[in-house]
Amino acid sequence: MRRVGFPEVVLAEGKTSSQIVEICRQLARAHDVLVTRLPAERWEELTAAGPLPGRAHYDDRSRTLHLSVGKPMPKVEGTVAIVTAGTADTLVAEEARRTLEYLGVFSATVPDVGVAGVLRLLSRLEEIEAADVVIAAAGMEASLFSVVAGPVGQPLIAVPTSAGYGAALSGLASLLSAINSCANGVTAVNIDSGYAAAMAAYRILSGGPRRWDRKEPVSKPRASTPTKRRSASTAKRNARS
Amino acid sequence: MRRVGFPEVVLAEGKTSSQIVEICRQLARAHDVLVTRLPAERWEELTAAGPLPGRAHYDDRSRTLHLSVGKPMPKVEGTVAIVTAGTADTLVAEEARRTLEYLGVFSATVPDVGVAGVLRLLSRLEEIEAADVVIAAAGMEASLFSVVAGPVGQPLIAVPTSAGYGAALSGLASLLSAINSCANGVTAVNIDSGYAAAMAAYRILSGGPRRWDRKEPVSKPRASTPTKRRSASTAKRNARS
Amino acid sequence: MRRVGFPEVVLAEGKTSSQIVEICRQLARAHDVLVTRLPAERWEELTAAGPLPGRAHYDDRSRTLHLSVGKPMPKVEGTVAIVTAGTADTLVAEEARRTLEYLGVFSATVPDVGVAGVLRLLSRLEEIEAADVVIAAAGMEASLFSVVAGPVGQPLIAVPTSAGYGAALSGLASLLSAINSCANGVTAVNIDSGYAAAMAAYRILSGGPRRWDRKEPVSKPRASTPTKRRSASTAKRNARS
Amino acid sequence: MRRVGFPEVVLAEGKTSSQIVEICRQLARAHDVLVTRLPAERWEELTAAGPLPGRAHYDDRSRTLHLSVGKPMPKVEGTVAIVTAGTADTLVAEEARRTLEYLGVFSATVPDVGVAGVLRLLSRLEEIEAADVVIAAAGMEASLFSVVAGPVGQPLIAVPTSAGYGAALSGLASLLSAINSCANGVTAVNIDSGYAAAMAAYRILSGGPRRWDRKEPVSKPRASTPTKRRSASTAKRNARS
Amino acid sequence: MRRVGFPEVVLAEGKTSSQIVEICRQLARAHDVLVTRLPAERWEELTAAGPLPGRAHYDDRSRTLHLSVGKPMPKVEGTVAIVTAGTADTLVAEEARRTLEYLGVFSATVPDVGVAGVLRLLSRLEEIEAADVVIAAAGMEASLFSVVAGPVGQPLIAVPTSAGYGAALSGLASLLSAINSCANGVTAVNIDSGYAAAMAAYRILSGGPRRWDRKEPVSKPRASTPTKRRSASTAKRNARS
Amino acid sequence: MRRVGFPEVVLAEGKTSSQIVEICRQLARAHDVLVTRLPAERWEELTAAGPLPGRAHYDDRSRTLHLSVGKPMPKVEGTVAIVTAGTADTLVAEEARRTLEYLGVFSATVPDVGVAGVLRLLSRLEEIEAADVVIAAAGMEASLFSVVAGPVGQPLIAVPTSAGYGAALSGLASLLSAINSCANGVTAVNIDSGYAAAMAAYRILSGGPRRWDRKEPVSKPRASTPTKRRSASTAKRNARS
Amino acid sequence: MRRVGFPEVVLAEGKTSSQIVEICRQLARAHDVLVTRLPAERWEELTAAGPLPGRAHYDDRSRTLHLSVGKPMPKVEGTVAIVTAGTADTLVAEEARRTLEYLGVFSATVPDVGVAGVLRLLSRLEEIEAADVVIAAAGMEASLFSVVAGPVGQPLIAVPTSAGYGAALSGLASLLSAINSCANGVTAVNIDSGYAAAMAAYRILSGGPRRWDRKEPVSKPRASTPTKRRSASTAKRNARS
Amino acid sequence: MRRVGFPEVVLAEGKTSSQIVEICRQLARAHDVLVTRLPAERWEELTAAGPLPGRAHYDDRSRTLHLSVGKPMPKVEGTVAIVTAGTADTLVAEEARRTLEYLGVFSATVPDVGVAGVLRLLSRLEEIEAADVVIAAAGMEASLFSVVAGPVGQPLIAVPTSAGYGAALSGLASLLSAINSCANGVTAVNIDSGYAAAMAAYRILSGGPRRWDRKEPVSKPRASTPTKRRSASTAKRNARS
Repeated sequence: MRRVGFPEVVLAEGKTSSQIVEICRQLARAHDVLVTRLPAERWEELTAAGPLPGRAHYDDRSRTLHLSVGKPMPKVEGTVAIVTAGTADTLVAEEARRTLEYLGVFSATVPDVGVAGVLRLLSRLEEIEAADVVIAAAGMEASLFSVVAGPVGQPLIAVPTSAGYGAALSGLASLLSAINSCANGVTAVNIDSGYAAAMAAYRILSGGPRRWDRKEPVSKPRASTPTKRRSASTAKRNARS
Repeated sequence: MRRVGFPEVVLAEGKTSSQIVEICRQLARAHDVLVTRLPAERWEELTAAGPLPGRAHYDDRSRTLHLSVGKPMPKVEGTVAIVTAGTADTLVAEEARRTLEYLGVFSATVPDVGVAGVLRLLSRLEEIEAADVVIAAAGMEASLFSVVAGPVGQPLIAVPTSAGYGAALSGLASLLSAINSCANGVTAVNIDSGYAAAMAAYRILSGGPRRWDRKEPVSKPRASTPTKRRSASTAKRNARS
Repeated sequence: MRRVGFPEVVLAEGKTSSQIVEICRQLARAHDVLVTRLPAERWEELTAAGPLPGRAHYDDRSRTLHLSVGKPMPKVEGTVAIVTAGTADTLVAEEARRTLEYLGVFSATVPDVGVAGVLRLLSRLEEIEAADVVIAAAGMEASLFSVVAGPVGQPLIAVPTSAGYGAALSGLASLLSAINSCANGVTAVNIDSGYAAAMAAYRILSGGPRRWDRKEPVSKPRASTPTKRRSASTAKRNARS
Repeated sequence: MRRVGFPEVVLAEGKTSSQIVEICRQLARAHDVLVTRLPAERWEELTAAGPLPGRAHYDDRSRTLHLSVGKPMPKVEGTVAIVTAGTADTLVAEEARRTLEYLGVFSATVPDVGVAGVLRLLSRLEEIEAADVVIAAAGMEASLFSVVAGPVGQPLIAVPTSAGYGAALSGLASLLSAINSCANGVTAVNIDSGYAAAMAAYRILSGGPRRWDRKEPVSKPRASTPTKRRSASTAKRNARS
Repeated sequence: MRRVGFPEVVLAEGKTSSQIVEICRQLARAHDVLVTRLPAERWEELTAAGPLPGRAHYDDRSRTLHLSVGKPMPKVEGTVAIVTAGTADTLVAEEARRTLEYLGVFSATVPDVGVAGVLRLLSRLEEIEAADVVIAAAGMEASLFSVVAGPVGQPLIAVPTSAGYGAALSGLASLLSAINSCANGVTAVNIDSGYAAAMAAYRILSGGPRRWDRKEPVSKPRASTPTKRRSASTAKRNARS
Repeated sequence: MRRVGFPEVVLAEGKTSSQIVEICRQLARAHDVLVTRLPAERWEELTAAGPLPGRAHYDDRSRTLHLSVGKPMPKVEGTVAIVTAGTADTLVAEEARRTLEYLGVFSATVPDVGVAGVLRLLSRLEEIEAADVVIAAAGMEASLFSVVAGPVGQPLIAVPTSAGYGAALSGLASLLSAINSCANGVTAVNIDSGYAAAMAAYRILSGGPRRWDRKEPVSKPRASTPTKRRSASTAKRNARS
Repeated sequence: MRRVGFPEVVLAEGKTSSQIVEICRQLARAHDVLVTRLPAERWEELTAAGPLPGRAHYDDRSRTLHLSVGKPMPKVEGTVAIVTAGTADTLVAEEARRTLEYLGVFSATVPDVGVAGVLRLLSRLEEIEAADVVIAAAGMEASLFSVVAGPVGQPLIAVPTSAGYGAALSGLASLLSAINSCANGVTAVNIDSGYAAAMAAYRILSGGPRRWDRKEPVSKPRASTPTKRRSASTAKRNARS
Repeated sequence: MRRVGFPEVVLAEGKTSSQIVEICRQLARAHDVLVTRLPAERWEELTAAGPLPGRAHYDDRSRTLHLSVGKPMPKVEGTVAIVTAGTADTLVAEEARRTLEYLGVFSATVPDVGVAGVLRLLSRLEEIEAADVVIAAAGMEASLFSVVAGPVGQPLIAVPTSAGYGAALSGLASLLSAINSCANGVTAVNIDSGYAAAMAAYRILSGGPRRWDRKEPVSKPRASTPTKRRSASTAKRNARS
């Protein structure tokens, strides 16, 4: 774990199975391990390449592998809403959800908020506004980003996806939609990177992870003592109690 | 006027003032003339270049010049709604409006349907649906196209505009949004081309202009006898009377 | 079926077989179902994934699946001509044809109107002009769009195809040809999207589908009572009788 | 002011002087007004176009105009560090600073953190980490984004600038650097948009502006009663007192 | 004059007036001189920069300067047809025409062969086919290239022009149309380069200029004794006599 | 065979095997048939799809199929030199060679004229200059085009190839090199299109095929009576005899 | 071996196995042979295609084949540091290392100098500065180039890699980072070309190979008598002794 | 002056005149100052903005300003040849020359080595090979890079220039030519950056500037005692004496 407190996550793409196994073993000494962009067929290769540390939980929808060695990341207060435009954005949303889970952040998925049906979107606004941070995943022309960011005031992280074909240019069209959004303060991460969106949300919710990793050693994660940030959702829950 | 019945419209860009004057004189023998993409400073040059046929009506917002020689295009039944996302799209919308006016088509402008405010859009839907064809002009990420095309069933012609900066890429981003729209059957014309959108709407409303120009000479426009197409708006008006 | 009256069509790309089966079952409660971009090998997977509703008619040229549950879309008056430049554009044209068929619209295909042979094109003009809307599909430099739109006055929807290689840039060159057409009022949809072209034609012919779906319940399609729009082709037929 | 609580800010680009004056007058009824991307020469035009509401404070480095009508935005707790790579990024940083000031957010500028001098960067880390949100503005290859995001755990909003020439492609190269950052959770806004970065920071710090604008009328801003969010910097200041 | 026999032509762009004068003086010792891409205002600068050799003939439509020192290029047998799509392509066509004139090649211009009017094109075919080489200049979607190359069997050199706007991408769209032409054997030169097209035609008609410049000194041009190549147009003229 | 005299050649790409067989049968009634871009595996499929007309000669290096039905194209006088930069350009050069052979044109290949070795190039100049037309095929930065076109005066047709990787952008870099060549009058065809280059050479050498196909029926090719054009190579051979 | 003294290296891509075997045999008469971009599966094909000259040493990480025929390249004084950003850049770094080894140049690899950890980089600076030339390989946003070039004064050759996804655009983003580096005098080679970087380093260290190949025949390489260039590392070693 | 020993050079672009004056004053305390990309009109503004330190030498061809305060950079042994393709590349070459002069490096310009005339190039090879490093500047298709790098073994730094038009894409075409060069070990810097090329040459010749700046204080430059590197040109000169 680096100085800033982010756990090191393993990107499977561009690495051999034996490299991945080796890296996982090293990281598992410090904390639970997450491997991303690991398709089902590579996961099978990996299991053949040598024993992995801890208990493995592979999820083929998000293409992620979670190795649990009993050292989870400390829970972070606050919640994330993951909004998708269509079924083809599910994989990316799942990568975000699994990464947040790994980082100790609670998230709720709000799927199929098809922009083509504005009324359908309005019926989900309450649900979206209940979260502290919003991740929106959309491909094609990705108007979802602007449509959600209009009425919603929370931080909105746009994940352009490669859903679509032809002039969708493998996600470049939706990336441009995110960057040019007429809605205030929309920010964007890389195409299909549910992972990067989750990390951006984590930066917001943890209030900067560098703080907690200075207070206590990494080997003793404060799973039960979440960060101090008093989030909107905390306030709300308190109000309810 | 060519065989298909479209009047020949003069694109000022790339032509000298004397070329424009000459072409206007030739065309004015057959029908009223429209000149597009003529900025105010060029309009002044033009007036100096020689006498123009008919009565000139120059409009600097749309950068168009209408030369009236008493031979207007025959009125076409049906109406067009021109929807814009923001103030910066006005010029393009005005070019569409003036071209439709010249073509004998009635249009109504529905400005500033900012996508960022979905509720504002919903309040204008009635107005938009009253038209037979919808032209939508938007720059930046141009989610307007998909948002309007979702609840509206009429033909929708998207005009990407060059409004925006940086990654808006002079309108390419909004063009990609139009082409990749997740809404059904959105069609697109060139960036900033209010003119092309008006022509596309004209094709739809006149039901193919080739028909009327065979029946009667162009020099006797049937201003009072619109084309036979029985449009929705006609039906409605009839119902009211 | 959404408020505007468009049936929901299933894009197979980016969805798993079980997701497709599930969506088809839901949609089949309301109306017949169309699945697009479903290659032959995926169609075989689908049949293995579970029973599909209704009678299935799979067509491998258009890569579409039509599930008939006895609730077809109401017939729409007016016809569409689907013009192609070459044999490589057939797949796209077939997708348009099958979608129109599903939407209750009659279409006629005018294949291989190679631009390289202008005379050949002229011999087909009569046939093209008999339709109310023209869909043109072409790849490479796609001059077909401008060449047909010149003498033909009907609405023309250009579908750029990915036919070609090298600098054809997977269809971007033909998309640019459509968008920059010097012919009046040509409109464009996404590369290879016969589906989008069909939907755009449907918007034009149905005069805005919102109208009929308000008058009678979707479960009782008016197959025998077409929409009220009095199209050019109707007029002609009447004139003949 | 829209429902979500963001004040409406005026983008001068693409609007005429009289349009700007008119919009300013309307907005000034509700709150102080900010006009962005208003170069010095246009500012002079504007003063000639008619009386503006309130006291005008024009700043030519940021090209922004602040019209103070005694209705400032409520103060928001938490601070922003605006880090720049070089002198050419100043304009963009100033736009961010002025926008934050207008939004009631305190910011501190950390200029010229040239990546070429890694040691120089390290000496500024303390200063950067003292803020709750980091905005980084850089052109050319923009390695600043990754270099700062490595050791710093706070939310980092990258603003690519158009500084550079040739293959800098007017800021596209730095935009790509932001989007592809190997550092965790970097997010990006449009090229040269200090404004968008400020808005994104505002979303994070205000915890979603929708909350406060429901509690009290906009015409009585709670300048003295900042939002409830208990930020890191608050904690720190408290600790110091 | 270089070994291959091409005269050296001066591209004014990117050179100072004094550099141009100096180069013209050097070249004028060997043969007449042509300067291209010299706008009217630069031509005025040039005349002020010092005395030019020979008699100057400046033409502002083609932006070329011809310096006649009594050493013209030898006449080349065969003719070139220069076909344009619209008025905006005139400048480029004129550059080709003036370059051919300078090279001793006869050319005839066939203007405004608008593709939108296929019939108009057919009426000009006879005229085009009378030439030995065809140069076609067109902007926007440039279908002219394929439409002419279809029925015409002569070598066809396509000059994409920057006429158009928005998605015309300053001529890239028409360049792609030339390169992807479905017509057989169309070749392309750089955007707006009437000069390059003329040189390509010269290569074809002179049968390789290296031959004649070996046989006789350049200072004695064989204006009256054209190259030996027996072209189609020669054959025709002979047949008539 | 179309009016202009070009035989119709079959592009296998984008067609099914049965479509190819059907087209070959039709064309074989008029003349010998050439099929291009037919990889070895597709050739095997084709033979299984049904009997092909005439004697088949498949060549896997050029991926072309020649079906000889005893009606070859008439011989054309003049020769073509096909120059390549490296081994990876062989496939493209072979496609050009086989197409020329089919068209009745003699060609000679000058391989591996690596630009990196200027001296090697100079030693091949004599050989290149002996031809009437030069086709140059090169990938990567493709300086071959300019280097050959410098000392050689014949028509030069550049075929950019997709040889190279990374920033070669699948041949776009070499296409740009061809289009921007500083050498006079270089013309370009599509990436990897040895076929288009051969057709362009054929246009030059046949002096426009429209002439001969009017004089005598295609079924009686004038193999022994070449076109009238008196080419350089003819002159040379005559001089030798 | 060409005149300049560079050995000819075989790029396997785009060549058939038999072509490669043939070229290797020819080159092996003059010197040891290196084959690059030869994946493991092609290496197996190659061994089946016929006997290769000398002793073969295939390395699958770098995808290179070294054929040793007892005529190695002469040793070159000076060393190269090969720095990589991450595990995914290893393949490219290995290609550089193997090529340098073949060229007689000593290199040391400094892997995983992740920019995200600036402190980690600083700890490796000493190691990097000990070399005479630095090769840096990085993908994604590739800030490694600027970060290393800042404090290091040696020649720095940047090799952009295709590591990354989405907006990494197969290495174009990292290429742009190299070209736009704000650090002084960074130079770039093609994406993923460890080979080109090694050759560029060889040019620097050998002081221009043309010199030695004039003094003695290539068939007697001066393995034991390195080039005369007195490099920094020599100076250092001498100083130590 | 930074730790690595490079002097800080001022890029005028993107800075105000007063910012430039201020920076020059600060830098002039340590060493002579160079300002780049300062067009003539801006130079005049600068002189009005306040007194500059030292003696000013402005050069309008290279657009550079050299402020001499008696603290020149130490002389570096070895020479650079600056080769250009045409007159339009002069500006860039001059920027390189002036920067090298400022850095204490001797350079010689070899202009107009037009690739179109290969023979002309060969006559200059001797001159080019006499240098230790070669900088080549070329626009358009830039084959100069490969043509020079073929026979020349020294390090070659390619500077793509924006000379050309249309598909030259403001220098991107020549940048691609540099990056894709088939010649071994060509490296590239940014478009039009004579400055970057000079800095890259300086890195090579000074053997890494970090060494000398550790040995003696910057305030006492060793103008008369050049760095120790024993270059080829030194050897040659010695041999001659």
